[in-house]
Order: sequence, then structure tokens, then C-alpha cells
Amino acid sequence: MTHRHPPDASHPAKIGVVTISDRASRGEYQDKGGPAVREYLVRVLTGHFDAISRVIPDDRDMIESVLIELCEIDKCCLVITTGGTGPAHRDVTPEATEAVCSKMLPGFGELMRKVSLEKVPTAILSRQTAGIRHKTLIVNLPGQPKAIAECLDAVFPAIPYCIDLIGGPYLTTDEEKVKAFRPGK
Amino acid sequence: MTHRHPPDASHPAKIGVVTISDRASRGEYQDKGGPAVREYLVRVLTGHFDAISRVIPDDRDMIESVLIELCEIDKCCLVITTGGTGPAHRDVTPEATEAVCSKMLPGFGELMRKVSLEKVPTAILSRQTAGIRHKTLIVNLPGQPKAIAECLDAVFPAIPYCIDLIGGPYLTTDEEKVKAFRPGK
Amino acid sequence: MTHRHPPDASHPAKIGVVTISDRASRGEYQDKGGPAVREYLVRVLTGHFDAISRVIPDDRDMIESVLIELCEIDKCCLVITTGGTGPAHRDVTPEATEAVCSKMLPGFGELMRKVSLEKVPTAILSRQTAGIRHKTLIVNLPGQPKAIAECLDAVFPAIPYCIDLIGGPYLTTDEEKVKAFRPGK
Repeated sequence: MTHRHPPDASHPAKIGVVTISDRASRGEYQDKGGPAVREYLVRVLTGHFDAISRVIPDDRDMIESVLIELCEIDKCCLVITTGGTGPAHRDVTPEATEAVCSKMLPGFGELMRKVSLEKVPTAILSRQTAGIRHKTLIVNLPGQPKAIAECLDAVFPAIPYCIDLIGGPYLTTDEEKVKAFRPGK
Repeated sequence: MTHRHPPDASHPAKIGVVTISDRASRGEYQDKGGPAVREYLVRVLTGHFDAISRVIPDDRDMIESVLIELCEIDKCCLVITTGGTGPAHRDVTPEATEAVCSKMLPGFGELMRKVSLEKVPTAILSRQTAGIRHKTLIVNLPGQPKAIAECLDAVFPAIPYCIDLIGGPYLTTDEEKVKAFRPGK
Repeated sequence: MTHRHPPDASHPAKIGVVTISDRASRGEYQDKGGPAVREYLVRVLTGHFDAISRVIPDDRDMIESVLIELCEIDKCCLVITTGGTGPAHRDVTPEATEAVCSKMLPGFGELMRKVSLEKVPTAILSRQTAGIRHKTLIVNLPGQPKAIAECLDAVFPAIPYCIDLIGGPYLTTDEEKVKAFRPGK
């Protein structure tokens, strides 16, 4: 495994943040999901990281291309998407994610739906998932900004260890905000 | 989006109710699942709707044909199946459902298993799911009549909003029985 | 259905126990998962059974071959795997399991992750599942020995009835340890 040292200023962790929304991509609507994800990362991560942001339409081919680029070219250890996870005709983020991943992690979607269900019964309509492509963990979040922190609070404790297991950088968190769990440590 | 008005007597919502059971389809056994679903719908829905009922064997091709017909010809906004979701050789309802849907909604199965698990540990054997085909939401329920209301009570609050999102009629419920949730309303 | 009588000394139930670990298969590491599964079975099952054990590497083709052999040649009614369910590159047990099964039982993975999540937030990284191949139930467990009894305690109450439904032997348990549930009994 490479990169088993924490990321530093000269080797920051790369994290992709992809807003998937027809309206935001056309500028008809201000992207609120992407900023909410980046604020969360700034608040909880203690090491150096570069956020690489994209705002794209709900187009399956384009989502797949952007995800592949963030994995293969930008070498992101983590890509977080927001939007496109509902049941509407244009919502295709989970299908695009599954198409570019070699393995899926159903526990992410199960847990995010469980915590959202404590707030709204329509959480069962959310189809978000997570998966692995080579050395990148891809996690889908819902588009609603208020649901973003709630979903990340649920799954983030497992993300640094997942990135360890796929050979990425050693992410550290502010333990008062999110306690990253590493078994046996 | 079309049909954003509530259904009325001249334009009722169409709801398919499909009993999937070898024995019931041969008349060896009285269909109790279909009537339990229809009674539930009559009890909770306040608008006009037509229930289109079918009783068919556990045959994957036939299930797929009937689901497609209810979606494409009858223009149902919702199709509820009962039966064929267990682990036995003849139980193929989830596979047939997945084959005709363009997107799956895993949260429905997760929540139905969770509520059934509070009653019986064998709930984990239930494989029911839900998915979308064009403008139709298809939801699998277990075959046991006593589990039907319990599963519908869990998922029904999210169904009217799901049908809004796929461009179907505006379903309304008796809020004392099932409170349909529409975010932001 | 055949074998509806409890297994006896001349017709024991056959149960496959497959440890999936590169290191254990090379002898670099003592297999602890397989013994933990067998001890659990000895403790809870009251009828005669033969455990057929295998220790193999995290190689998808080999996992598939061993699972098929245990189902088709050894006629196991149940195969329990341990290991290979995480997100690492070599972890391919769920993919191999899905490839050899005709139907999947997502409720097993959901429930095992739920109980593990009460212990560790990294439980969402566990991808274990369960499925049916002809007359065999295949269940994936995590590799950690301490998680094995915890996961089996959660799902075992549903296993004997599942095996009834697929035409296997009538398994009985020590009810003080695990209460096998059979609806309507």
C-alpha cells in the first residue's frame, strides 16, 4: 500500500465534489449541495486536502465520464456526489455510480436512508449508494442541502478506514466533530 | 408534468393489484392478498381510483407481461403485487419486478423488512422490493394477508409523493389513516 | 419436497464452512473464522450434521468453484462463508456468491450490518449478503471471529425455515441458544 502517511501540503488528499442537477448546471438555480459538502469537509477534516468541484446535469453518460475522470485522472481518494438520487425520470446518479464501480457498499445507502427516515417518511425514495472504483470511494448524497450534513454525520466515521483499505491517504478528522473509527486502533 | 390535479370520477387514478400465487391462480386456494390490498386502498385513499386486479401463477414471464400491461396499456400509476417474494424455487416476483423496471427503490424493501422483523425473525427471508417503470411505481408486498397492512402502513406515506415525482395523479389520503408526506408542503 | 424428516446419523445434514482469506490459505495466518463458525453450529444445532470445511484464497473463480461444488456435489443445505466481504481490492466474496446464486436475500446483509453497526461504525463497509442456489442457502459472514457469533445470532433464527422452503433437511436448534422460527408452527 502506498500513501500510508497522512496527506501534507505538498501531497494533499484529493476529494471530488460533484453536484448533479440539470437546473444548477444551467445556472437557473444556485448550487447549494456542492458548497454544503465542501463546508462539511473543511469543518471535519484536519489534514490537507484539495476539493475538486464539478456541477453537471442529470445525464448518465456525463456523470459516468466525470466520475471516471475524478478517479483516474485526478486520483481522488473520495468522490462525493449530491443530487440525482430520487425516483424521477432524470434521476440517474445511482445507476451511473454503479456502472463505474467494481464493488458496491450497500451499507452506506441503508444507513443514510435510516437516519433520513427519522426525519421524513419519503426517505425511502432516496436511492443513494456507495461503491469503489480502484482506489476511490464514491458516495452519493441526496440533493437537499439540509440532508447533506445529516447523511455525512452518519457515514463519515467509516470513510477514513475505507480509504485506508483501498490504499488511499490516511485521512484524519477533528474528533469533536466526527470520530473516524479504525478497528484495532 | 401532466395530471397534477387530483383524480376525479371521470379521470380516476388506476391502481393495479396483482396476486401472484400458483395455488390461488388455479383456484385451489382463495386469494386473500388481493382483497387485503384493495381494502387497504379503499380505506386510505380519498380520491377516485379504479383497482385493476389480476391473479396469476408464480411464472416469471407471465408476471413480467402482466406488470408491463398494467403500466403501458392500463396506465396504472401504482401497481401493488402480493406474493412470490420468499426464497422458494417458485418465488420470482422480485426478479420479474426488477426486469421490467428502469430504476429500483431499495428503501421500500429495507423498511418493510424492518417492520416485519419486529414481528417475526423470518422477515429477512422476504425479498420484496419496489421500482419505477416510466410513470408507474411497482411495489412488492408479501403474500401473507396479515403482513399486508403492516407493510403498507410503513411505506404508504411516501407513495403519493413518489407518484408526483414520476408525473402521475395527485393522490390524497385520509390523514387519520395514512398521512401522505410531501416535502416542502 | 424431500427430506422433510429431521436429519439422523445415517442422513446427516451437510453444511459447508468456507474460510476465504489469502493469508489463511497460504498458512501465514491461523484460520479462526472457520473454527468459530463450526463451534457455533455445534453449539446451536441439535440434529446430526457434517461440516465440510474449506480454506481458500480471495480468488473469485476459486470461490465460485468451491461454492458450486459444495452445493452440487456435496449437496450442502447451507454454506457459510467467512471473510472477503470488505471494500479492499481482494475482497470478492459477495460478487462470487451472487454469481452462483439464482436469487438473493438482501435481508440477511441488512440485518447483519444493523447489528454490527451497534458495535462499530465501520459495519457499513461490510458487504456480506446471502442467496439461494437450488437447494442450498449460502450466507456470507465477516472474517473477524468476534463478529461471527453476533451475526449468526441475528440471522440463524430464520435459517431452518429458509432451508425448509428450499426443500432441505429439517434443522432443529437448542432453543436456549437460538430459537428457530417457523411461521404457523
